[in-house]
Amino acid sequence: MALDSQTDKYDLEKTVRYKRLTPPHLSEWCSSLGTYPNVLSKVGGHPFVSNNDYFIGDVSFPNADALRVRELYLRAGPREVCVFHPQNVKAAVVTCGGLAPGMNAAIAQLTNTLVGNYGLKQVLGVRYGFRGFLEPSLSMYPLQPDVVNDISLKGGSILGSSREVPRAESIVDAISDNGFNQVYIIGGGPIDGTLKASQQIFEEIKRRKMKCSLAVIPKTIDNDIMRIQRSFGFETSIEAAAQSLRSIHCEASCSYHAVAVIQVPGRNSGFFAVETALASRLVDACLIPEFPFKLNSLLNHIYERVRVKGFAMILVSDGAGHEYVASNGKGHANFCPILMDEIRKYFDERMAEANILFHDVSFIARTVPSNAADNLHASILGSYAAHGCFAGFSGFATSMINDVVAYIPLSELAGRTKTVPPQLWSEVVSMTGQDF
Amino acid sequence: MALDSQTDKYDLEKTVRYKRLTPPHLSEWCSSLGTYPNVLSKVGGHPFVSNNDYFIGDVSFPNADALRVRELYLRAGPREVCVFHPQNVKAAVVTCGGLAPGMNAAIAQLTNTLVGNYGLKQVLGVRYGFRGFLEPSLSMYPLQPDVVNDISLKGGSILGSSREVPRAESIVDAISDNGFNQVYIIGGGPIDGTLKASQQIFEEIKRRKMKCSLAVIPKTIDNDIMRIQRSFGFETSIEAAAQSLRSIHCEASCSYHAVAVIQVPGRNSGFFAVETALASRLVDACLIPEFPFKLNSLLNHIYERVRVKGFAMILVSDGAGHEYVASNGKGHANFCPILMDEIRKYFDERMAEANILFHDVSFIARTVPSNAADNLHASILGSYAAHGCFAGFSGFATSMINDVVAYIPLSELAGRTKTVPPQLWSEVVSMTGQDF
Amino acid sequence: MALDSQTDKYDLEKTVRYKRLTPPHLSEWCSSLGTYPNVLSKVGGHPFVSNNDYFIGDVSFPNADALRVRELYLRAGPREVCVFHPQNVKAAVVTCGGLAPGMNAAIAQLTNTLVGNYGLKQVLGVRYGFRGFLEPSLSMYPLQPDVVNDISLKGGSILGSSREVPRAESIVDAISDNGFNQVYIIGGGPIDGTLKASQQIFEEIKRRKMKCSLAVIPKTIDNDIMRIQRSFGFETSIEAAAQSLRSIHCEASCSYHAVAVIQVPGRNSGFFAVETALASRLVDACLIPEFPFKLNSLLNHIYERVRVKGFAMILVSDGAGHEYVASNGKGHANFCPILMDEIRKYFDERMAEANILFHDVSFIARTVPSNAADNLHASILGSYAAHGCFAGFSGFATSMINDVVAYIPLSELAGRTKTVPPQLWSEVVSMTGQDF
Amino acid sequence: MALDSQTDKYDLEKTVRYKRLTPPHLSEWCSSLGTYPNVLSKVGGHPFVSNNDYFIGDVSFPNADALRVRELYLRAGPREVCVFHPQNVKAAVVTCGGLAPGMNAAIAQLTNTLVGNYGLKQVLGVRYGFRGFLEPSLSMYPLQPDVVNDISLKGGSILGSSREVPRAESIVDAISDNGFNQVYIIGGGPIDGTLKASQQIFEEIKRRKMKCSLAVIPKTIDNDIMRIQRSFGFETSIEAAAQSLRSIHCEASCSYHAVAVIQVPGRNSGFFAVETALASRLVDACLIPEFPFKLNSLLNHIYERVRVKGFAMILVSDGAGHEYVASNGKGHANFCPILMDEIRKYFDERMAEANILFHDVSFIARTVPSNAADNLHASILGSYAAHGCFAGFSGFATSMINDVVAYIPLSELAGRTKTVPPQLWSEVVSMTGQDF
Repeated sequence: MALDSQTDKYDLEKTVRYKRLTPPHLSEWCSSLGTYPNVLSKVGGHPFVSNNDYFIGDVSFPNADALRVRELYLRAGPREVCVFHPQNVKAAVVTCGGLAPGMNAAIAQLTNTLVGNYGLKQVLGVRYGFRGFLEPSLSMYPLQPDVVNDISLKGGSILGSSREVPRAESIVDAISDNGFNQVYIIGGGPIDGTLKASQQIFEEIKRRKMKCSLAVIPKTIDNDIMRIQRSFGFETSIEAAAQSLRSIHCEASCSYHAVAVIQVPGRNSGFFAVETALASRLVDACLIPEFPFKLNSLLNHIYERVRVKGFAMILVSDGAGHEYVASNGKGHANFCPILMDEIRKYFDERMAEANILFHDVSFIARTVPSNAADNLHASILGSYAAHGCFAGFSGFATSMINDVVAYIPLSELAGRTKTVPPQLWSEVVSMTGQDF
Repeated sequence: MALDSQTDKYDLEKTVRYKRLTPPHLSEWCSSLGTYPNVLSKVGGHPFVSNNDYFIGDVSFPNADALRVRELYLRAGPREVCVFHPQNVKAAVVTCGGLAPGMNAAIAQLTNTLVGNYGLKQVLGVRYGFRGFLEPSLSMYPLQPDVVNDISLKGGSILGSSREVPRAESIVDAISDNGFNQVYIIGGGPIDGTLKASQQIFEEIKRRKMKCSLAVIPKTIDNDIMRIQRSFGFETSIEAAAQSLRSIHCEASCSYHAVAVIQVPGRNSGFFAVETALASRLVDACLIPEFPFKLNSLLNHIYERVRVKGFAMILVSDGAGHEYVASNGKGHANFCPILMDEIRKYFDERMAEANILFHDVSFIARTVPSNAADNLHASILGSYAAHGCFAGFSGFATSMINDVVAYIPLSELAGRTKTVPPQLWSEVVSMTGQDF
Repeated sequence: MALDSQTDKYDLEKTVRYKRLTPPHLSEWCSSLGTYPNVLSKVGGHPFVSNNDYFIGDVSFPNADALRVRELYLRAGPREVCVFHPQNVKAAVVTCGGLAPGMNAAIAQLTNTLVGNYGLKQVLGVRYGFRGFLEPSLSMYPLQPDVVNDISLKGGSILGSSREVPRAESIVDAISDNGFNQVYIIGGGPIDGTLKASQQIFEEIKRRKMKCSLAVIPKTIDNDIMRIQRSFGFETSIEAAAQSLRSIHCEASCSYHAVAVIQVPGRNSGFFAVETALASRLVDACLIPEFPFKLNSLLNHIYERVRVKGFAMILVSDGAGHEYVASNGKGHANFCPILMDEIRKYFDERMAEANILFHDVSFIARTVPSNAADNLHASILGSYAAHGCFAGFSGFATSMINDVVAYIPLSELAGRTKTVPPQLWSEVVSMTGQDF
Repeated sequence: MALDSQTDKYDLEKTVRYKRLTPPHLSEWCSSLGTYPNVLSKVGGHPFVSNNDYFIGDVSFPNADALRVRELYLRAGPREVCVFHPQNVKAAVVTCGGLAPGMNAAIAQLTNTLVGNYGLKQVLGVRYGFRGFLEPSLSMYPLQPDVVNDISLKGGSILGSSREVPRAESIVDAISDNGFNQVYIIGGGPIDGTLKASQQIFEEIKRRKMKCSLAVIPKTIDNDIMRIQRSFGFETSIEAAAQSLRSIHCEASCSYHAVAVIQVPGRNSGFFAVETALASRLVDACLIPEFPFKLNSLLNHIYERVRVKGFAMILVSDGAGHEYVASNGKGHANFCPILMDEIRKYFDERMAEANILFHDVSFIARTVPSNAADNLHASILGSYAAHGCFAGFSGFATSMINDVVAYIPLSELAGRTKTVPPQLWSEVVSMTGQDF
């Protein structure tokens, strides 16, 4: 990236106010925290990162004169001074929520960094998400470099996962009973899932003044976590979904008057649907939660496509059409069955044949092995999470922002989601010609 | 992405100087330039972008008090006012230099945008790079949406390509003779290739005061273009290379005392080698142009790996080891043959068997069809290049910076390359254990 | 293949009776059939096959002394003498029934042989199966070598398909009205599908004494057609199913107490399930129509697997468990929902958790593009079908038997299906340990 | 497969002489060979095969009246009576020669059958081919079901391989010293490779009257072993080669006047080249050892293709053009360099540009993981080899003939190779239009 030069001419000068988003640190509640030189210095080659090294997140440049506050993120990386001695660390790794490509790569690189680089003796994998902390029958999985050697060639998580979110107190009891002082959580769900739970677990750790570093490696194929550019696994999932779309396109184009309804992940936001639509260029309409639509215009659009082209394909984000689901009084239910009913009716009324096909590509999208880019992405987040814990941060997430890895306070991620921006959405509208 | 709030508290205030990098505009040399409302407004859904909309490139935050100049990039996108009427536009598209995954996606989306959205009558593809401008026997390829429909499923460029760089004057003569007033060049080579040539062609267009917009969509699987985050096709190529590495690993691990030397693209910088090494986790040493090494230490490292593990793999960037190539007086030649000789000698001296294997994965890496992410990436650059030309910019490149698409003056890209930063390199060193 | 030598010693001598299965020939009902030298002789390189060239089908060797009749098949291939002059031929190609990998390869090679080699002017593709013969709105698709050039890279059939089986008389009327004298049908369904219908269409053609050659290229991913070694597309489908099983295995092994029920094609016979099970080695039980099972033993087997291994996978052939479906009085319905209910009950009764997953991999298995082997297989059947029609055969199928291509009378294929032999089934039982 | 019915009518009667090819049996040289009931009967589901169960190999049906001898093969499968008690068996598994997809599947299923089904305690993998028998530093690899669980997902052989062929006496000494009484050899090379060596090792075992069963699972991606329908791994390799050809086609078609020369495996016979050519349909000429060609006509054919189409592709079997290699006095050398020289000259003489590209796809073709069909194929050969050894056969190979698995005497395979039949070759000639 181009470094600005001091000698460059300038054509604008502004006074800018900044706010530094610094993650919590054990020193805030642990009184006598030892310090140790980072063992990585022994093997050389590791440029340490300073605790004063911040970078800009939102790069948009306000034209207005008004003074705005620009947020700064803390740059991740190994620190010169650690608050843990490797011999005294017992680490837990847990994967929660739905599967995503790259979970195994994150586990592998965490293990390599903790055991191979820092020299830990005990890194234990917790089975089936948080429930592995609580059920004695689920014995922990000892993680060693030779065990994790090849795991990133496989999808899913070797530890298993689950969506259950137990009470924070029980988890912290288990952490305490097991003597863990570093806890690595790979999971998403900012509203009511793992991210939210992790924040609560962290608050409890802090309340008890435990010397325990908790790091989250955010994971979601919905790519809906606020502030985070692109979740690891997202690209692999899009690739898998686009490939499934080619199969569905094959089936639809070979069937007389086929209307394919394809459900993809995305309850809160439509990034998955949008990128799949744009990357595949195979769909005639795309529905996402952020932008409401008129059902009748949609049906007419699809009807016309079938008439002209012989078939049509509709990509539906998991959470799209919630206004129509609600009106049916079914709560959190899914729009696709309603849509298929409506298509059936619309074609019947016009005495037109319709072969309605339904596919949910979520499953295949989340279980494929990660591609090279996501492998690398997840690996880097894994090793930087370890550096952050050794540096004494706790209650933080490790994420890419503007291609720089940051340590972000969990409190900045939990409780909200990001949404598809209008400019990206307009690309979809322009491609599909949907106008409703 | 998080928007900064005006009401947020701040903990820092600075005076910052900015320099806006604005691409050249036809109005600078064409006296009576008409203006036309953008036709895209008719179909709706296109949020226009203002010519005052800039964003930050380098996000690093200088800790020092010294005042530095921060560069701003112009945000790409459709403008409300155009300087061309679609009926008067004749566009040329040309692909130059080595192949890269995604070229066809860029051609397809350029065609869709120019013909499908703006309504152009004539978009012509120039055959085999710049030579298609000059050789009458190579007739132009009429580009229409139905022709480009499926092309992104294939690797390469449907137009063909070549590495030849003719004199700028001849090209501009051909542009003029053919009546092209929009020229789209897909190519890389900032030092002595397409990017450099495009800058010279643009200068000649400007000198002749032609009403002709020239846009470059930068392409390189080396990912070495300054200021540009990540070239389209790069991730697909890394994936292909990592997969080839698995085959080579299979062969090497099945052969007694195998030493595999694997060449990957990267004459000026080692991004390709570094990402392939980190993503695959299969190599014992990685050599790149940016970081010199001691040959004897390398040989010893490899010898030890063979002794302990039974085989070893060395990943070599195209331009690595130039210091040893130069010392042999062979100029721009390749290091791999020298390396293989030295390995042979080193093992012979120690009476040890060595089965030396050589593979060049560059070919497969540049010819595979692009994955979904690169398809999308190249498509977006294609459509934004069209918007930029209609807006009257000329002599610019369309690229992603911090996940925002920018119009960058060609003069800011030509003549230099970017290099692997030390922090990324340290990840490789830590993984391979190479220490030389 | 080793040719037996006349000079070899022998240790056994038998008198064998043979029955030659010769397909019908136009000369049987067309009085004045012209003869023309095969145009292929012009370009050389084509060894003509004699009408006396037969080969053995069933290779088993009866130990008993009893005299049995051994069937002989007619070897396919270009004949020296044709009954059609290329200038007078108008050919129709139609694809019927469910999709299978390789349909496009068969279409492509038929087109290449008919147009490229024999020099036909008119080869028309009929749209959406037999219905394209009857609905005037579905205009025929002119097939030319440049049109079919790349189609085998895509799944499905460029002509579309449908499962409808109209009356034979209507089809023959359409054949007659359109002036087709060669009809190529790509389809399966020996009991009540395309094969059966083709036989009836052929009978009607013969009854009307039309000079019209009808050839079937048998297609089924169930691989259940009698006498036919291996349907084209079968291996590609197994590969796709096995890959889907890896994804399902990923999901199941990552979920607590998962029981995955996976449906695969195979209404009449279990070849698809058996080969998928053996090739993937990932399932704990495999159910096929040929071998009944005790439901309670199955449930216990699965329960034990979940208890010991944490999850279980059951592969279910489409037509398996028909005895339980029937007892529920639901007729031709599917067993999987019943099975899932029973699993739920069985686990509930034992107070055990069960996460029941369901996947139908039929769709993906039939829509993937064909692999190299199936491409080649379908291509060869395509070109040999053309040779057979030019030679004057009608009412025949082109198929591989013992790796030799045969022309088989349709009457020998329609009306029956083949079943999984006990020795192959025992491999599955031995692998899964299922004993019920 | 259709069983012939006794009641069928017949139209031909012949007296046929048969020769049964029965593999050697330990009882021929071991005086007091115990017999044990097969343990497989305990778990049920295994239909035993009788030692009198033979089947027909060559299915061609001689029209002439002359009496010929038809060869019969022994059907493979578990026998009711064994000559080994599982507790007394110590088995060795070794993989020799070049890699082929499916070697790991064969190793896995051998292990599963020997340990899992027969209950052996000791199955040892010999490292790096035969050299692992002789070098004490290469310790044996204990094979257990859990170790081989996933290995078929990877290419190559977990045991490693080598092409070295030591003296039979040394190998038999090692077998004897280690106490092995079942030796499984996965390898090919009927002329001067593993098959030939295995035959000699067997002869030495017999000469020493050792109670040792030696089984070969033939392996070759050349598919050139006499009598054997299709070697396991062949289809996977063809698929990989066809995919590489698509990349090469991409590169060639994008380059001005490219002539791509592509080398594929096949020293003695051209099956690999022929199937790759037919499956990919991308080459303009195909050269194989069996059919000589006129160099000048080939050059003219290629020149014309470049003139008309812009580029050309030539597929060259490893052993093709030996007549031109010989004439240069270079012995066993390769034709490709000579061909490229000649192309260069031919184009130079005509003042035409030629961009000559060279690719050897052998490497990638032999290292990819096996597809589902080859997995299954190799697995079945693995388990049947075990059954054959337990039954007391020695000096035999396990192979598919007419889709039935046979035990063939090694003496029938060593010393000769099969060649591409004219009818298959004519398909290639017809496709490429090559006429020289």
